[in-house]
Amino acid sequence: MARTQGSHSGITGPRIRAAALALFARHGYAAVSMRQIAAEVGVQAGALYNYTTDKQALLFSLLRGHMDELLEARAAVPVPKTPLARLEDFTRFHIRFHLARPEAVFVSYMELRNLEPGNFAVIEDLRRRYETELEDILKDGNARGVFALPDTKIATLALIAMLTGVNTWYRAGGRLSQAEVETVYWEMVRKAVAA
Amino acid sequence: MARTQGSHSGITGPRIRAAALALFARHGYAAVSMRQIAAEVGVQAGALYNYTTDKQALLFSLLRGHMDELLEARAAVPVPKTPLARLEDFTRFHIRFHLARPEAVFVSYMELRNLEPGNFAVIEDLRRRYETELEDILKDGNARGVFALPDTKIATLALIAMLTGVNTWYRAGGRLSQAEVETVYWEMVRKAVAA
Repeated sequence: MARTQGSHSGITGPRIRAAALALFARHGYAAVSMRQIAAEVGVQAGALYNYTTDKQALLFSLLRGHMDELLEARAAVPVPKTPLARLEDFTRFHIRFHLARPEAVFVSYMELRNLEPGNFAVIEDLRRRYETELEDILKDGNARGVFALPDTKIATLALIAMLTGVNTWYRAGGRLSQAEVETVYWEMVRKAVAA
Repeated sequence: MARTQGSHSGITGPRIRAAALALFARHGYAAVSMRQIAAEVGVQAGALYNYTTDKQALLFSLLRGHMDELLEARAAVPVPKTPLARLEDFTRFHIRFHLARPEAVFVSYMELRNLEPGNFAVIEDLRRRYETELEDILKDGNARGVFALPDTKIATLALIAMLTGVNTWYRAGGRLSQAEVETVYWEMVRKAVAA
């Protein structure tokens, strides 16, 4: 077992994750079997268990990987100085990051209900960490009098829902470029929070 | 068959729909069998086929029923005169209608991918009809100079995503009443579209 795991790690792993993500996105977690994932990768079902303990571990790994990537990408961005500049940066970052990963975003939202409670709590915590940055920007803007939001917690959830919604309709090569879409959203965000 | 259908219509029908909706919401359409739905209702699986031809027809009927109800409820509301009053009315209506039907909203979004193409087209058309009312309000406000939106189509999708997002976090009995939540969202919508 150990030898097989070693020889496959870094080669089969990403392919298993990609296959699982595509199948979960297309059919839903509950409807996909480990056998189907193995077939998509082109390996025997048993080979999957060298990589993951079960389907739940695979789902959790995908959702956790998505959140880790989001937080790491966000941490790598230099922080602009004013609340307004920070909010614009957050807005454009959020749209760009999520549009680049439609399947991961879709599965991360859809399959939350299929996470076991302990796994769900971990993902919720990572999500909250991401949302907290936005809420901190809004609180800071409120404190400096440049934003006027009666409830920064609700505003955070409202803005994130609005921005993630881009994923439901945007198609590359459509009427507007991604940068133009970002700007249209940013204009709405800017006005929505303004003092 | 006809006799059985007749004797059950209006009794078993709503119970089948309620059971299917609850099970689809909990486990996902693909993971739920007609047998499970029958067991939840407390009838033999065969009895379901007196009511519906198959699971796809049941899903379509649920999603279509949700959209029909939405459009009927909307049509029953008197139309305020100004774009601003119409937008406030639409905002509050949208939140109220969707918060009252969390399972139907969830399944309507989640299971779009599981509709057969012809059924999908029907639901998309009904959705577009609903969105068109909001876009017409925004266009009217733009034309009268009370709104300033560079792209009313995107603004429509952005606002609907923001408002439907309430369903992902609102719980009755929480920190804010539903009316207070409506007001917080309305303030953000009002400012986001303002000239």
